[in-house]
Amino acid sequence: MNNTSNGLLTTIIIFGASGDLTQRKLIPSLFNLFRKRRTPKQLKIIGFGATEFSDDAFREHLLSGLKKFAGYEFTNEEWNLFAPNLCYISGKYAELEHFKKLSEQLKKFENNEEANRLYYMALPPSIFPTIIDNLDKSNLLHENGAWRRVVLEKPFGTDLESAITLNKQVHKALNEKQIYRIDHYLGKETVQNILFTRFANTIYEPIWNRNYIDHVQITVAEKVGLEHRAGFYDGVGVLRDMFQNHLLQLLTLVAMEPPASFSASALRNEKVKVLSAIKPMTPEQVSTNTVRAQYKGYSQEKDVSAESTTPTYAALRLFINNWRWQGIPFYLRSGKNLAEKQSQIIIQFKEPPLAMFPMQTMKPNMLVLFLQPDEGVHLRFEAKAPDKVNETRSVDMEFRYDEAFGKTAIPESYERLLLDAIQGDASLFTRADEVETAWSIIDPILQTWEAHQTPPLAVYKPSSWGPAEADVLLAKDGRRWVNEDE
Amino acid sequence: MNNTSNGLLTTIIIFGASGDLTQRKLIPSLFNLFRKRRTPKQLKIIGFGATEFSDDAFREHLLSGLKKFAGYEFTNEEWNLFAPNLCYISGKYAELEHFKKLSEQLKKFENNEEANRLYYMALPPSIFPTIIDNLDKSNLLHENGAWRRVVLEKPFGTDLESAITLNKQVHKALNEKQIYRIDHYLGKETVQNILFTRFANTIYEPIWNRNYIDHVQITVAEKVGLEHRAGFYDGVGVLRDMFQNHLLQLLTLVAMEPPASFSASALRNEKVKVLSAIKPMTPEQVSTNTVRAQYKGYSQEKDVSAESTTPTYAALRLFINNWRWQGIPFYLRSGKNLAEKQSQIIIQFKEPPLAMFPMQTMKPNMLVLFLQPDEGVHLRFEAKAPDKVNETRSVDMEFRYDEAFGKTAIPESYERLLLDAIQGDASLFTRADEVETAWSIIDPILQTWEAHQTPPLAVYKPSSWGPAEADVLLAKDGRRWVNEDE
Repeated sequence: MNNTSNGLLTTIIIFGASGDLTQRKLIPSLFNLFRKRRTPKQLKIIGFGATEFSDDAFREHLLSGLKKFAGYEFTNEEWNLFAPNLCYISGKYAELEHFKKLSEQLKKFENNEEANRLYYMALPPSIFPTIIDNLDKSNLLHENGAWRRVVLEKPFGTDLESAITLNKQVHKALNEKQIYRIDHYLGKETVQNILFTRFANTIYEPIWNRNYIDHVQITVAEKVGLEHRAGFYDGVGVLRDMFQNHLLQLLTLVAMEPPASFSASALRNEKVKVLSAIKPMTPEQVSTNTVRAQYKGYSQEKDVSAESTTPTYAALRLFINNWRWQGIPFYLRSGKNLAEKQSQIIIQFKEPPLAMFPMQTMKPNMLVLFLQPDEGVHLRFEAKAPDKVNETRSVDMEFRYDEAFGKTAIPESYERLLLDAIQGDASLFTRADEVETAWSIIDPILQTWEAHQTPPLAVYKPSSWGPAEADVLLAKDGRRWVNEDE
Repeated sequence: MNNTSNGLLTTIIIFGASGDLTQRKLIPSLFNLFRKRRTPKQLKIIGFGATEFSDDAFREHLLSGLKKFAGYEFTNEEWNLFAPNLCYISGKYAELEHFKKLSEQLKKFENNEEANRLYYMALPPSIFPTIIDNLDKSNLLHENGAWRRVVLEKPFGTDLESAITLNKQVHKALNEKQIYRIDHYLGKETVQNILFTRFANTIYEPIWNRNYIDHVQITVAEKVGLEHRAGFYDGVGVLRDMFQNHLLQLLTLVAMEPPASFSASALRNEKVKVLSAIKPMTPEQVSTNTVRAQYKGYSQEKDVSAESTTPTYAALRLFINNWRWQGIPFYLRSGKNLAEKQSQIIIQFKEPPLAMFPMQTMKPNMLVLFLQPDEGVHLRFEAKAPDKVNETRSVDMEFRYDEAFGKTAIPESYERLLLDAIQGDASLFTRADEVETAWSIIDPILQTWEAHQTPPLAVYKPSSWGPAEADVLLAKDGRRWVNEDE
């Protein structure tokens, strides 16, 4: 069922509807899709949450969220067309009884007809099995002509074992095709553009391999610190929060072989192949190929244990053991409280084989994919320095998303992902084996860090580019991090 | 003698010193080199010409030229330092007697010491042998510790036979190492940058071949018409005026193999190899692979014969028969009275092998080297169109010389070439075999055009992009000219 055109109504049921995500992202995205007439003609949205709300209060709550977070202008008329499709049910996720209210509301919204249903879990993963179980027991997951899909918010597990367990639990009532594990990072235009850059062009693919590339740097730097998330973050840390999902996803997009098609299964097969080609590290390898660090002052933050060793920064050196990438290091780093908010992928090419020009600076070419905040592509190359005899100088060719397409053209990533889920396109969602393979890379690192406390937890200055140890990680290879648009 | 540091004085002797080139280009370039302290410490310049000038009148004439044409600001002090190094001799090129005056002036300027001498022929080639012969007879070409070099202005011959004859004549008194055949096109920064782009970077060379390139377009379009040059131009035409030198030079820079070094002989060996790999056309091939055209109204221009069949526009389809380029067409075109002044080289890549994205436009990548008027490099590639599901759109990465280096940074091409000749670097000058091989490509086309009048002389509208026949030349191959920055 790869489409919405089965002519049926579609209902979206959001669990955790009183939470932040619903107000900030999900409803603004769904409303915008509605305004652009991209949602199915007859779309209903049911919020389910622990907080008490009347339907009207829920709508008011969402409207005030739209005004604050939508990032686009809309009219009262548009809202008045959208609002009647919203309602709210207050209930407990563990109470089977409360799912009766949901069944009744569904019947009412769906006029007792068959309708497609998208269940969105805007909640922590620990509660997923309970809800899925109750949906199953209430006979709300059974597909008969209409589809049932479940969107699961990240994080998907906290280690390999818990991910396997969680997969088993959700597979009890659902087959894999019904499951949409969301990583909003993949909904970003510029993240998708990695694949477009590679595979809609002729010029990059021939040089996209170990013959021409020296190494790859993937940086997802946050300027902010904990931001009231200490309760969630402490004990979890940067590896679970950022690497297992975002950074490894970016790595698969950069490193994967060209799939035969852009279909969900072709694409995800290739991603799993990349992850499978990364050998899990031995404890010795963890101690020399990883850096873990905490920003100075972290343990004094509110809600953080004074003895906390939770890393707020990590840097990894990974190798992909296949024909394309053998021997080429991928350096990944991410952290909180860094100098800049900056997500970028740097493809650093090898130096030309010969310094032909007497005054050649021999700076290697660099392709930079900027994911945020300034989305675009830079290509650094050498040109002749004018009015000099045979001297080269590095110059930039630059493409900026906002210059080419206008600032407002880039939609919120949830918009694309929600539409994909409604339309049954799972390309940008994570498959069970993909999640587990990603965890199998992260797990040995976590275990070595937590069990052996090696490498030692480094410290870095807030608003810096991370600990000196991370610089050493690259310096050992004769390389260095590119921190700014250099 | 590959340097100026033999400690000796250097004298430049310009034949044709009362002409336009001297006033507009040579002296402004030499003066600017002097201002930048790049000329040898003790530099003297002797003008030799048919017009009568006193030294002072000559200097005045040059100063007024500087004010009009130099394109840079200078002070009276700078001029007053430069001017005493200038003098003028009026004489006839054919009169051996008049070269005595030159000998005497040289002795005076050079204090009877040994000095390096650069003879610059700012004259038509028919007079070169006479002057060289008289210089030889006056014992002014003999090298003993100091060097003697001769710069020969283009055109070098009017066909293969005359070029061979001219080479023989100049070789009587000079060895090839003393001869600097100038094509000011090669002094342009952006023309030299073709080699820098290719060989100071890693990313282009692997895709610079028949596997990835669909075809190459070289355009040198002039917006101006005859501009008082009818006397020279009529009967000569665009092929001799532009193709034999400029366009074939550009082609060699785009197509050559990487030389082992940037030395004159390594570079010129590779250029000759490219030209040698172009098979001279048979008359049948000329009729299907070339277009010749005249702009409407040409034969009514002043000083043009009413029956003139001189082509003011030509387009060629050439193939380079070697491993790198076999089967890849190079389309060359040039003309007067076209829509825009524009020199550019377009590398059109093949389409990606697979249209992976459902809404892919499959526009091929295009690398554009802009030589003038807006010097720079464009790379057209495909990106994801934002807020669309899997739709691509063409975008441009752009590098502009003036943005990167400032508008005034690009010097007049004669400046570089004069300095190279003084310093004994012949890399950017044309070697005897290179000139002859270029003529061997052009000659059969000229002969077929002139003897058989085939293909028929086409007509094009002034200020257009040339005749319809030129579009057909590419359309037969399923291709089209790129006329603007598309």
